[in-house]
Amino acid sequence: MEETTTGVIRLRAMAADGALKIPVVAVNDAQTKHLFDNRYGTGQSTLDGIIRATGILVAGSVVVVAGYGYCGRGIASRARGLGADVIVTEVDPIRALEAAMDGFRVMKMLDAAKVGDIFITATGDKHVLTSAHFTQMKDGAFLSNSGHFDVEIDVAYLNDAAKKVERDVTRHVDAYHLSNGRIVYLLGEGRLVNLACAEGHPAQVMDMSFATQAMASEWAAKGAQLPVKVHEVPVEIEEEIAAVKLGAMSIKIDTLTAEQRKYLASWESGT
Amino acid sequence: MEETTTGVIRLRAMAADGALKIPVVAVNDAQTKHLFDNRYGTGQSTLDGIIRATGILVAGSVVVVAGYGYCGRGIASRARGLGADVIVTEVDPIRALEAAMDGFRVMKMLDAAKVGDIFITATGDKHVLTSAHFTQMKDGAFLSNSGHFDVEIDVAYLNDAAKKVERDVTRHVDAYHLSNGRIVYLLGEGRLVNLACAEGHPAQVMDMSFATQAMASEWAAKGAQLPVKVHEVPVEIEEEIAAVKLGAMSIKIDTLTAEQRKYLASWESGT
Amino acid sequence: MEETTTGVIRLRAMAADGALKIPVVAVNDAQTKHLFDNRYGTGQSTLDGIIRATGILVAGSVVVVAGYGYCGRGIASRARGLGADVIVTEVDPIRALEAAMDGFRVMKMLDAAKVGDIFITATGDKHVLTSAHFTQMKDGAFLSNSGHFDVEIDVAYLNDAAKKVERDVTRHVDAYHLSNGRIVYLLGEGRLVNLACAEGHPAQVMDMSFATQAMASEWAAKGAQLPVKVHEVPVEIEEEIAAVKLGAMSIKIDTLTAEQRKYLASWESGT
Amino acid sequence: MEETTTGVIRLRAMAADGALKIPVVAVNDAQTKHLFDNRYGTGQSTLDGIIRATGILVAGSVVVVAGYGYCGRGIASRARGLGADVIVTEVDPIRALEAAMDGFRVMKMLDAAKVGDIFITATGDKHVLTSAHFTQMKDGAFLSNSGHFDVEIDVAYLNDAAKKVERDVTRHVDAYHLSNGRIVYLLGEGRLVNLACAEGHPAQVMDMSFATQAMASEWAAKGAQLPVKVHEVPVEIEEEIAAVKLGAMSIKIDTLTAEQRKYLASWESGT
Repeated sequence: MEETTTGVIRLRAMAADGALKIPVVAVNDAQTKHLFDNRYGTGQSTLDGIIRATGILVAGSVVVVAGYGYCGRGIASRARGLGADVIVTEVDPIRALEAAMDGFRVMKMLDAAKVGDIFITATGDKHVLTSAHFTQMKDGAFLSNSGHFDVEIDVAYLNDAAKKVERDVTRHVDAYHLSNGRIVYLLGEGRLVNLACAEGHPAQVMDMSFATQAMASEWAAKGAQLPVKVHEVPVEIEEEIAAVKLGAMSIKIDTLTAEQRKYLASWESGT
Repeated sequence: MEETTTGVIRLRAMAADGALKIPVVAVNDAQTKHLFDNRYGTGQSTLDGIIRATGILVAGSVVVVAGYGYCGRGIASRARGLGADVIVTEVDPIRALEAAMDGFRVMKMLDAAKVGDIFITATGDKHVLTSAHFTQMKDGAFLSNSGHFDVEIDVAYLNDAAKKVERDVTRHVDAYHLSNGRIVYLLGEGRLVNLACAEGHPAQVMDMSFATQAMASEWAAKGAQLPVKVHEVPVEIEEEIAAVKLGAMSIKIDTLTAEQRKYLASWESGT
Repeated sequence: MEETTTGVIRLRAMAADGALKIPVVAVNDAQTKHLFDNRYGTGQSTLDGIIRATGILVAGSVVVVAGYGYCGRGIASRARGLGADVIVTEVDPIRALEAAMDGFRVMKMLDAAKVGDIFITATGDKHVLTSAHFTQMKDGAFLSNSGHFDVEIDVAYLNDAAKKVERDVTRHVDAYHLSNGRIVYLLGEGRLVNLACAEGHPAQVMDMSFATQAMASEWAAKGAQLPVKVHEVPVEIEEEIAAVKLGAMSIKIDTLTAEQRKYLASWESGT
Repeated sequence: MEETTTGVIRLRAMAADGALKIPVVAVNDAQTKHLFDNRYGTGQSTLDGIIRATGILVAGSVVVVAGYGYCGRGIASRARGLGADVIVTEVDPIRALEAAMDGFRVMKMLDAAKVGDIFITATGDKHVLTSAHFTQMKDGAFLSNSGHFDVEIDVAYLNDAAKKVERDVTRHVDAYHLSNGRIVYLLGEGRLVNLACAEGHPAQVMDMSFATQAMASEWAAKGAQLPVKVHEVPVEIEEEIAAVKLGAMSIKIDTLTAEQRKYLASWESGT
């Protein structure tokens, strides 16, 4: 069972290279996982981590979100919801367009670097914020990562190049004195800010992620031997989890009538 | 080339039945089409149609959106953006959960029928609003459809059962006097309200839809003979369209470095 | 009875100059008028007018709102609600701060002129958009006014300086060919865009404005002779109108208990 | 100098009773205080306190905000921005209407009590949540106060009537076992949740509040002897603070031209 976006990317790369040795279920790719955990969970907990670490007022701040995948759009949505002016950076033109149509400013990170107050990486890649960006930043900029390991922000460079580093100026925040005389603040050593500086995701999203993992495990264990590849979680499992969750939230929804079901499947009427 | 959600559903049904006679390209399913046209185009133009037809103040109104697909979420987002209290109805538990997590109230249509001021169907199915619902509605409720043909709202029932029908009480709005003494107003005869009561989608989304259609046509015409089935638009075409559109909006985005590209494809580092 | 912000400003100026000859009631300053009419009415109808005149997709557009009074904040809120990236310009530092804290970008009009797609003036003053700004604008910028007369945008300059003017390129939109080779589009001749290009405010806000005017008139006619000055609408009238309006919207609210009323008025407990 | 809404209410009550003995400056009533501190500060820090204490996912929750003053609207805005379905209760019909037009549901607290997941009082009054409401609440409801002292929620009743109280089930959260078998959770003993469970307001709003207090103190100390009453902060002080703050945020704004200033003050043109 693989629970993270970056893990699934790597497992698929292994499968493509013929290096995968065991069957794997891409739990992350289940809608009951990434639609909720990555968007609503990461969205809230990332801002929570940043507020706890820095005490900053999000309203009136310029927040730069790198990456407009499910994590990135959750973060961008919550930052705006707290009153920020949000900038999105992307490498995928379709996602960049979506961000623009959602009302966010979209630009290159080199341009965003000059105006951001708070930077949040959520790309799953490395070196999204590098020396080229650090030197352009305003004095007092906050750097945080909510996507992947401590490589999205080039922390190694910061540790090498800074004239001086003050650890824990506030809890989990290190001040890097750059050679241009400015200071940038790194949160949680560049590790996942929602885990490093807050308490991770709320139970109300982890329940769905863990239910997906548990039920997919049961399915893999009880069914026929799975072939060695990256498997999707069966849609029936996702639908059952979503239905149980709705019940827990006291939400009742409609069901298709037989006539409606037939209409959707037909091609002889309604066209 | 098929440009609509409901068309693609039917063509796939034909293919499954062995009734498809020619190769078809599901232009609607291209991201450059449904992500933008269905969400941002339908979102704005639906509210535009309702405002033109009724002159209603959306702020402070209870808007009920049936269906939380791309059209439905565009409509829900714009209705909220104009100040409405928005209720979503769904038959899919995962989409219902998304709507709830997006802050909308989710309930059965029978419950929503009692409190809505404006109803908008966007499901692609038939009989979403029926006699069961009409009789529960408040006096003065507005009924509109933005999803499919004039079958989402059971117009036939209304025409049969109403004690009296006043046509064009305002332009494109018919008043149905129900036997319970209340009036419901039907917009644009239950046909697509953004076409019937406004001017359809803005050029800024149709450009992408038509570009997708044109370039997919060129691809189908110039390439090898396509087999008889429902084809996806090649991703290269989508990316080219998105890149051109970004250029037209003066938006510049980042590109992956060779190192970043390698990192994403690898499974030996970063894990 | 004076129903507009700009009218009240002038009447107070007359009073200050000793030029006022009759008692006047500042209906506009009643909360039941400007809180609702100027914010929710102007907000929706301004965007409505712009969409009808231009067919533009608001999502993804850069909208520049001049003035963050009640009209301006209504417009800014609705433009954002339709997916725009909104910039606010102001001359009052406190309002400018509010706009920034509300998540809008705030800058000088000279800077906004370079990036805006749609300009909307709502200041109540003259020459908010002038030659200095027109020459900086992007080719194809839309100019509209929702604040005051046709002096907020310097239309006289445009008519004098343009190399060529094409009237009604779409209904109510004139294309001004500037000497720098670019075109700017003026909506509704620079007159109030919600009246010129749409149908003014929805009945659901005008009811409150007119009720305020009617009940203030009754009060002025039936009561003692009012002294010659600018009068406020009595708060009892505002509360009655608001209560009636809530009833019409089927909204029930709490009332203070005797104990709560006493607590609020006291200074001996709760401190 | 009085810094709080409830303090100013009491001081005015003292003045009305002839009990005020010294001149007081209503610092709270300065725009540079209550527009920012009460709205943006309380808005963020209240949600921050609730999230820290409970770990709840705000998205998908039903949040009930009692009171739509500056604190209440800040809280409602932030709760919605985090994805909640927000209900507002009020006793003032004009504020209730504003809340409805802002897209919030407005109802009596007795009705809200049945559906809320999180309750937040921000009224400045006592007994906003009482036994009548507690007994209607869902099992697991969270009770918090962000308005005034620990009297907004009737904590005394809870302590008397609960079958059992578990203190600190999580940090700063007490579980009250009601006689109907349900549990409600009280945050921070009903004291200000942003102080009890988080760290109060961000520095970026306290700077303005304290600057207003400091500069008003200087004005009171250096000027002529103030008469014994409740004084407003001079508008010049507010404008200076706002201008300095804008500078600190690197925001530049427009200034009126002499011609514009004259136009605003005149009544002979523009009418």
